[in-house]
Amino acid sequence: MKKRRLSRPIQIGNVTIGGGAPVVVQSMTKTDTRDVKSTINQIKELEDFGCELIRVAVPDEEAAKAIKKIKKNITIPLIADIHFDYRLAISSIRSGADAIRINPGNIRDKEQIRKIVIEAKQRQIPIRIGVNFGSLPPGKTRNQNYVQYMVKVTLDQIRLLESFDFYLIKLALKAFDVPTTVAAYSSIAKKTEYPLHLGITEAGLMPSGIIRSSVGIGILLHEGIGDTIRVSLTAHPREEVKAAYEILKSLNLRQYGPVVVSCPTCGRTETDIIELAGAIEKYLQNIRKPIKIAIMGCIVNGPGEARDADVGIACGKGRGAIFRKGRIIRSVDESQYFQAIIEEIHKV
Amino acid sequence: MKKRRLSRPIQIGNVTIGGGAPVVVQSMTKTDTRDVKSTINQIKELEDFGCELIRVAVPDEEAAKAIKKIKKNITIPLIADIHFDYRLAISSIRSGADAIRINPGNIRDKEQIRKIVIEAKQRQIPIRIGVNFGSLPPGKTRNQNYVQYMVKVTLDQIRLLESFDFYLIKLALKAFDVPTTVAAYSSIAKKTEYPLHLGITEAGLMPSGIIRSSVGIGILLHEGIGDTIRVSLTAHPREEVKAAYEILKSLNLRQYGPVVVSCPTCGRTETDIIELAGAIEKYLQNIRKPIKIAIMGCIVNGPGEARDADVGIACGKGRGAIFRKGRIIRSVDESQYFQAIIEEIHKV
Repeated sequence: MKKRRLSRPIQIGNVTIGGGAPVVVQSMTKTDTRDVKSTINQIKELEDFGCELIRVAVPDEEAAKAIKKIKKNITIPLIADIHFDYRLAISSIRSGADAIRINPGNIRDKEQIRKIVIEAKQRQIPIRIGVNFGSLPPGKTRNQNYVQYMVKVTLDQIRLLESFDFYLIKLALKAFDVPTTVAAYSSIAKKTEYPLHLGITEAGLMPSGIIRSSVGIGILLHEGIGDTIRVSLTAHPREEVKAAYEILKSLNLRQYGPVVVSCPTCGRTETDIIELAGAIEKYLQNIRKPIKIAIMGCIVNGPGEARDADVGIACGKGRGAIFRKGRIIRSVDESQYFQAIIEEIHKV
Repeated sequence: MKKRRLSRPIQIGNVTIGGGAPVVVQSMTKTDTRDVKSTINQIKELEDFGCELIRVAVPDEEAAKAIKKIKKNITIPLIADIHFDYRLAISSIRSGADAIRINPGNIRDKEQIRKIVIEAKQRQIPIRIGVNFGSLPPGKTRNQNYVQYMVKVTLDQIRLLESFDFYLIKLALKAFDVPTTVAAYSSIAKKTEYPLHLGITEAGLMPSGIIRSSVGIGILLHEGIGDTIRVSLTAHPREEVKAAYEILKSLNLRQYGPVVVSCPTCGRTETDIIELAGAIEKYLQNIRKPIKIAIMGCIVNGPGEARDADVGIACGKGRGAIFRKGRIIRSVDESQYFQAIIEEIHKV
């Protein structure tokens, strides 16, 4: 892994983005923001799944006002997502939003942006410049090279905000196409010090959207790029949060809940590993402490892979060997597999 | 994306691996190989999902003999997976396996390997050197640096095979840990010209195993590394094949079936996009021709993202605009969304 790009840190509520802080997991509500009760409930559920920042859409004044009530009932910082109408950004900040996102493709008037910045500066509220392939502002060079154009639009907006002496900036340059997204982020990462919010936009349904997001976000994180991530899925936002942690865990950037190593099974397997691993994962779904479990179908890789697992099993014909940190603890009968693993987990 | 590493091509049956050929999708059966009927049925199902190479476990002589019958009933090339007993490699080749995989951690006797190579050479059958973090051979430097040790074991085995004047070689250096796997493949890619089989071993259940595999395989493919991929999941192998294509599609390395761009929905959305996109994806599940569909919940990114989609919809309040290649074709009522998209798809 490349060394992480050192970005200039910003503070969204009590959460630090960039500057060497752990990569932050965020999501966005899919409820109508004006429906305060449903929005609070969804955010509370996401908090339970480890969501650290939440964004809400602000399509109108009523939604901006709802932020006040929502904020009172949640514990994680809230970001207001603004398009088209700069007054909604101002209202959202006044309602207590901890940060706002504006899209340079949708608010283009410099005087309007200046008014937003005045308000943000007064309350020290960061602004995300959220550039999106699907909503780029018009421009002569747009269709020549989308990556360069996304970077240009971002840099132009940075310069505009800096001209108002505003530096609490976070950047995103999202596209559906992974190579486009990776190229855009890689380019901007070299050109500025601002922290980066990573995502693949409109990635789609599960599992295809998860795969696309994992590939794109994974490549960038492995390059050392990225300070906060949001997985966009056409699914319940809890799936976004869960997927975000799995991406970060796969690169050892965060620890969160169990990691289950389990073999794909093959013609060598004598046990229903899919069922056993599934039952163990289900049992552990509310555990937030990091623990590594290995569920292996035979002796080919079993003991070796179980080497650095906190608890492992290598299943043979009718009997399996239970491991802790690579050492065999005991051997158990097939009917006892589930129970034996759970027992060892509780000992850890 | 980096330029693809140009590897020395090998031929497995009628499938070319490396040398600039498209990245090949492979999987492994999870049936008992001795159960010929079930194994054939599973392979035929995987062929339907686009699997291009299939591997079967060969735990004993009966499984090696079964290859003969299996081969008669399938159309894709078959690879025999061998551990511990070199005689099973020889039997598998004699039964008509198109390639074999041996693991240097499990067959260590040079004279036994020489006997396998004589048989493979006679029939021009490639050998995959399948090194695995979980089953590394013992060695003084093993625990000092796993990546270096995996590379060393691979290079030693390459030299051994080359000393028998054998060059039909494919390599894999798999681990569960993504940074370890990426580092091992990146190192071997610079040190040899042999084609590479990518995978993250024992990646686990869905969706965590899919995420881990997508991150690891995605990083390597984006680096230009990899000639064939296998996604290892504790799930039915059809999920492995589907995930493999989604990884390749996300990097524009292969086209296969539909690509559905769909927005994550938010407080701005007036339509049940999850349901609509899900219904469309389900309708298209047996389509193998490449087609790009965009299902968008509002006008923020809708028309923009629909720009390069073959068919797109941007849903507003009660009505939606149907796009083809970024041009509005017509506007339809909410009750007609599904039907209208399907109609346009059939016109493409």
